[in-house]
Amino acid sequence: MLLCDVGNTFLHFYHNGKIWKEKPYALSKKKENLPIYYISVNERFERCLLASHPYCVNIGEYIEIESEYKGLGVDRRAACKAVQDGVIIDAGSAITADIMQNGIHLGGYIMPGLSAYRKMCADISPVLDIKIEPSVNLSALPQNTSDALSFGAIKSVILMIKNTTRTKKIFFTGGDGKFFARFFENAIYDNTLVFKGMQKALEKHI
Amino acid sequence: MLLCDVGNTFLHFYHNGKIWKEKPYALSKKKENLPIYYISVNERFERCLLASHPYCVNIGEYIEIESEYKGLGVDRRAACKAVQDGVIIDAGSAITADIMQNGIHLGGYIMPGLSAYRKMCADISPVLDIKIEPSVNLSALPQNTSDALSFGAIKSVILMIKNTTRTKKIFFTGGDGKFFARFFENAIYDNTLVFKGMQKALEKHI
Repeated sequence: MLLCDVGNTFLHFYHNGKIWKEKPYALSKKKENLPIYYISVNERFERCLLASHPYCVNIGEYIEIESEYKGLGVDRRAACKAVQDGVIIDAGSAITADIMQNGIHLGGYIMPGLSAYRKMCADISPVLDIKIEPSVNLSALPQNTSDALSFGAIKSVILMIKNTTRTKKIFFTGGDGKFFARFFENAIYDNTLVFKGMQKALEKHI
Repeated sequence: MLLCDVGNTFLHFYHNGKIWKEKPYALSKKKENLPIYYISVNERFERCLLASHPYCVNIGEYIEIESEYKGLGVDRRAACKAVQDGVIIDAGSAITADIMQNGIHLGGYIMPGLSAYRKMCADISPVLDIKIEPSVNLSALPQNTSDALSFGAIKSVILMIKNTTRTKKIFFTGGDGKFFARFFENAIYDNTLVFKGMQKALEKHI
């Protein structure tokens, strides 16, 4: 059994404890007799997956969590399903934060991902078309444009997460999850969170 | 004498205590014998101004402040020049924060403006193409996509400003300055800040 999480940039795969990502238009050939159970937030990239493999099953409808939130994306539902108590931060193209308590989803919010920050700044002015610098000093006031943008992007995300998590345990996942996790004491990085949630749902339904 | 601040979206004008903004490609006719003293962060829009009026003087080089910051935009320098002590937040296409102490610029940072947040989210996914809702409740966890995005955008900006201003006086300016000012006790909104700085520079040089 192969699991796949179709995102807005990459397709993430999980098989026998290993995870890897592939670009939507350059998908590798998978064993024909191995079913792919997947979830998707991107219809176009989902079609790429369906075209590449004969046996794909969308298990989105199995990924259920208790929540008042309307329109919670299936990838967020899957990651939340893997956590009983804590805050889940998925730092990819977008950064989503979701709060779980006793297996119930209390709400969440969305911020742009770091690469989106960069693109956004470049769109405002060519002067601001600058790479986000991960090692920028967050304790001193920036003294140039590159630091000013990196400080604005990284520190605003960190302050938001600190403000809404307080003493709760934080589970980071996604491409920039490892980077952000190091700013928090009560954090772990787990890039299999979405797949853990998918497995949990599958155990119940298959 | 007419003052003009050429930005990345609008051209802002100041004359006899009145301010107004105009779109770059729909500039109104000004009195021919009235000189326009201007600063600009956008070359293309600057050319629109120059084409519309016979007597325009770029006073960018007069806008000097004491600072270690490399590449501080001329509009930020002008706003800073108007403030001896405090934090200047210019909330427009981008949101810039600059800290002044005893007339010296200590540093600053840059965040995306609210409209850039919206565009950025729409670029990530069509699902996230949603208007930022200014009246979103910032004290309760969001329960839908619109609130989740608005909460993420507005609260991250507010937390950043709170974290870097503490007890300092905050001077808000720019299109969204009035909106953000209401979240702070020690804040005033002054949409003439850039022009006050320009005037101060002109008094010295002309």
